[in-house]
Amino acid sequence: MPTMKDVAKLAQVSLGTVSRVINHASGVKADTVLKVQEAIQKLDYVRNDYARGFKINSSRTIALILPTIWHPFFSEFAYFVEQKLYKLQYKVLLCNSEADADKEYEYIQMVMQNKVDGIIGITYSAIDQYVSSKLPFVSIDRYFTEKVSYVTSDNVQGGRLAAQELLNRGLHHLAFIGSYSEYKNDTTKRHDSFMNYAAEQGFPPVEIYVPGPIHHLEDLVYELFNQHPDIDGIFCVNDTELLEIVNILRKQGVSVPDDVQIIGYDGVSVTNEVSMYVSTIAQPIHLMANTAVDILLRKIKDPDHAQEISVLPVSFRSGYTTINH
Amino acid sequence: MPTMKDVAKLAQVSLGTVSRVINHASGVKADTVLKVQEAIQKLDYVRNDYARGFKINSSRTIALILPTIWHPFFSEFAYFVEQKLYKLQYKVLLCNSEADADKEYEYIQMVMQNKVDGIIGITYSAIDQYVSSKLPFVSIDRYFTEKVSYVTSDNVQGGRLAAQELLNRGLHHLAFIGSYSEYKNDTTKRHDSFMNYAAEQGFPPVEIYVPGPIHHLEDLVYELFNQHPDIDGIFCVNDTELLEIVNILRKQGVSVPDDVQIIGYDGVSVTNEVSMYVSTIAQPIHLMANTAVDILLRKIKDPDHAQEISVLPVSFRSGYTTINH
Repeated sequence: MPTMKDVAKLAQVSLGTVSRVINHASGVKADTVLKVQEAIQKLDYVRNDYARGFKINSSRTIALILPTIWHPFFSEFAYFVEQKLYKLQYKVLLCNSEADADKEYEYIQMVMQNKVDGIIGITYSAIDQYVSSKLPFVSIDRYFTEKVSYVTSDNVQGGRLAAQELLNRGLHHLAFIGSYSEYKNDTTKRHDSFMNYAAEQGFPPVEIYVPGPIHHLEDLVYELFNQHPDIDGIFCVNDTELLEIVNILRKQGVSVPDDVQIIGYDGVSVTNEVSMYVSTIAQPIHLMANTAVDILLRKIKDPDHAQEISVLPVSFRSGYTTINH
Repeated sequence: MPTMKDVAKLAQVSLGTVSRVINHASGVKADTVLKVQEAIQKLDYVRNDYARGFKINSSRTIALILPTIWHPFFSEFAYFVEQKLYKLQYKVLLCNSEADADKEYEYIQMVMQNKVDGIIGITYSAIDQYVSSKLPFVSIDRYFTEKVSYVTSDNVQGGRLAAQELLNRGLHHLAFIGSYSEYKNDTTKRHDSFMNYAAEQGFPPVEIYVPGPIHHLEDLVYELFNQHPDIDGIFCVNDTELLEIVNILRKQGVSVPDDVQIIGYDGVSVTNEVSMYVSTIAQPIHLMANTAVDILLRKIKDPDHAQEISVLPVSFRSGYTTINH
């Protein structure tokens, strides 16, 4: 089996140069690239690797890792990622990870094998050790130990905005309902900011705040309302949970928005044309997708590209789960 | 540039045999496959094609063409397709075609270039001329001129079931609302079967039945109710349109289900855990995805595999848009 060393020897360049050519790094002269590519071909480097071609040509494929595509936030995000990448002549591999670290690691390995050029990942699994600052990887929301670029919405502003919108409606018995991930990420600021702001205003909220996924949400909500029957405003960590809460309350004879007003987070819609009509802190999903793609492409071009952190603005969108004032 | 002929000559086999090896057809002896693969490698056949490796090894990649992933039916379908293919060690390329025939054709070309092994397509665009009966392609709902395999739900049964459910609730002023595609497909049977069955029972429905996409749906619905103010039961061609109709009627002060009861088609849900709670004719989305994958893999294994047609059973699912009786 020929090695990278053999390629360097035949091409009469350093090992580092071979590596740079293989990784599409900038700053290598065209005739050097050609020499290395010829050596790779002559030696049949990575013999029997079906993706050998990718070693000397970009795969022009990006992997998109999502918890599940069967979710309106993730499917809208995927829609915009694919739309933008397609215009740039990239293809998108879809990975529903469902928090399976092994599955996610498989896609990380594909980057190392040059079968995909990079990864955009919304991930909640134990892959921290595999995500180096050199890897062309852009994270959504989540922090990694190494300086990995990420895109998130302004969760601090979002939490505050939710509290303001509820308080401005004269609601003073607030609750937060949501789960958090064991993997450190920016979305916990939704909770912290909401709780702090409302407390500062003199109305400290109660909460259901447990590690996800939440089991027995119905029991928890029932218990919360038993202990605090005067709850009149709820901030939910995301819109799908809001839909669950609305349904749970409906079953208990609690009317939304007449008895309780609720604000979610995400701003999801059923399709491009059909809204969910819920009151929510809307993330700029299109902008987040475009930004993630832009950062990833800069990182693919230059593995030494420094960490970028992009925090994008949110806005309140009024729907049927609050009463306009 | 070496040609397939050169490969045949060097391997001392017929041109047809080379073709069969390249296309992973069955019925070629192992030592013949080896001879052909060696000749392909020696000649550097398909020089400079980054996907050359795919010629002698399956890409183990499937393209999934959808109108848009930002839609609960398509994202659930994609979820199950990816889940099943991943277990079989295939990766999935995601294509939001948005009825762009050029984009869809690009993925068909990738099959011909062996960059992807096959396609599962939910398509509404002018690609009929490119979809041969030899192409490893499984269609959902749509018919092609050539004998292309397809998977669909039992649209005849679905239309009848919708009529029965409305009539059984004592509703006698029925309407069908929906669009149809200019590309012939099985879903038009939803309309035909609903209209015929209700008429046979003595209650011929009125209808909005126009080529899609529907513009000015709100005006059309308003006009329909102006002409037929006694409409009490509606069958919608799919669930997302049902959601639009509910919203349009709500704006006009018409209550669902008190004034008008509505049944959709698809059985979509927001996520794996959160339902839409609408009354609908549910397609077996998981089974449809699995069946499409199974048929596609049989076709990839054998390009001569005959057309398969799979019509899968539907069921009525009760939600908030009808009143239980």
